[in-house]
Amino acid sequence: MTDAITPPTIPAFVLVRPQMGENIGAAARAMWNFGLDHMAVVAPRDGWPNPAAVAMASGAGRLLDEARLYSDLPEALGRTDFVFATTARNRDLTKPVFSPEAAMAAAAEKIASGQRVAVLFGPERAGLENDDISRANALISVPVNPEFPSLNLAQCVLLVGYEWRRAQGDVKAQTVGMAGTEWASGQEVEHLSQHFEERLETAGFFYPDHKIASMKVNLRNMWSRMPLTRADVQTFHGMMRQMVRWKERD
Amino acid sequence: MTDAITPPTIPAFVLVRPQMGENIGAAARAMWNFGLDHMAVVAPRDGWPNPAAVAMASGAGRLLDEARLYSDLPEALGRTDFVFATTARNRDLTKPVFSPEAAMAAAAEKIASGQRVAVLFGPERAGLENDDISRANALISVPVNPEFPSLNLAQCVLLVGYEWRRAQGDVKAQTVGMAGTEWASGQEVEHLSQHFEERLETAGFFYPDHKIASMKVNLRNMWSRMPLTRADVQTFHGMMRQMVRWKERD
Repeated sequence: MTDAITPPTIPAFVLVRPQMGENIGAAARAMWNFGLDHMAVVAPRDGWPNPAAVAMASGAGRLLDEARLYSDLPEALGRTDFVFATTARNRDLTKPVFSPEAAMAAAAEKIASGQRVAVLFGPERAGLENDDISRANALISVPVNPEFPSLNLAQCVLLVGYEWRRAQGDVKAQTVGMAGTEWASGQEVEHLSQHFEERLETAGFFYPDHKIASMKVNLRNMWSRMPLTRADVQTFHGMMRQMVRWKERD
Repeated sequence: MTDAITPPTIPAFVLVRPQMGENIGAAARAMWNFGLDHMAVVAPRDGWPNPAAVAMASGAGRLLDEARLYSDLPEALGRTDFVFATTARNRDLTKPVFSPEAAMAAAAEKIASGQRVAVLFGPERAGLENDDISRANALISVPVNPEFPSLNLAQCVLLVGYEWRRAQGDVKAQTVGMAGTEWASGQEVEHLSQHFEERLETAGFFYPDHKIASMKVNLRNMWSRMPLTRADVQTFHGMMRQMVRWKERD
């Protein structure tokens, strides 16, 4: 039993009355995948520590060693400023309902302004009870298929953890990148275009006469439209050189 | 064995050489949580159908009944226009890397414009091989904790499926760029790639021997990465045909 101190820089993930040790271990792994390492456990069914949880957690075992154990939820929430509760169904409760994305964006903002935030996850089968939920400031509802809303505990933890990580500025790189790519310069593409044009001219590609000009323009457009790397440009030069060598060989 | 028909309204999720039946079943559940029900399975280690997969899938068993089984990846991708490959590590491959969110937003756009999209998931332990990845147009990398990147198959499926569902909310009627462009299909690009490979082989381009395999993978990567229109594909075919004619003329 330790002091109920929700950490200042990340949200605490609070497992309320979890049942299977395997699920607790899987939840720890899911959290640590996204850099979250503050777990609190409230009244676990099979006691604490839980060997099955440890076995499942493997590389994330530290989270279990450092997890805080509480006998009830109010105690666990001691010094928490804002509490989200994850729910499977949309309950008939007058509370704001957030998507995981909106919730973790809000959590990031609150934490940046000095608040301490916790996210509650209910027991596997039944989910959180109304009494648990009454202690939450807002709900998180994952937009699952209404025909098959079967997220398990670790999956729910995974999705919220994923959104936490996405909410961090540095990983918000949604932008499509090609890490380390050296793009060809305009001049390099121009040389490639000329190389092909000359060789294709020699080979009789531009034909009939009245279409030569537009064919050349189209080709030039094509090259300039392609997202060519330096390596691509070299490859295309190499192909053409080889075709010429082949022609000249006999 | 059925026809390789990637569906027109949702991405196909392709499990490449999956190992444990339990993981296949868990992947089916993860998919169906987000309304995705088109699974393809390539060369599953333990044969097909797989009782362990069925036991795990429970409410999502229909996905396994209807899953398409293929003996290799090219066959599975038969009528697919755009392929994403999920990767754990950031490989040293010159392909665009998308976040799950950006990937599924792009997938939704492509599907809205009539293309067929597939997402590849590798075997549990090793992940996709370079040869698999060479058949993809782009990569999906989940922004996990670099100290603990331990997503399992079903978790990876879950996160991509989640982003697919999120992308449904905000698919705008906005068509991005180059309105009216007829993009080349996956099959057309594949034919182009083959045509060049055969002719370049004859011309002696692939050299020295120990580099042949990697040169071919690089070429395939290059073609699949280019945003080729139908007209571009015809132009490249035409160039190559003309070089061959020129060679044969005398």
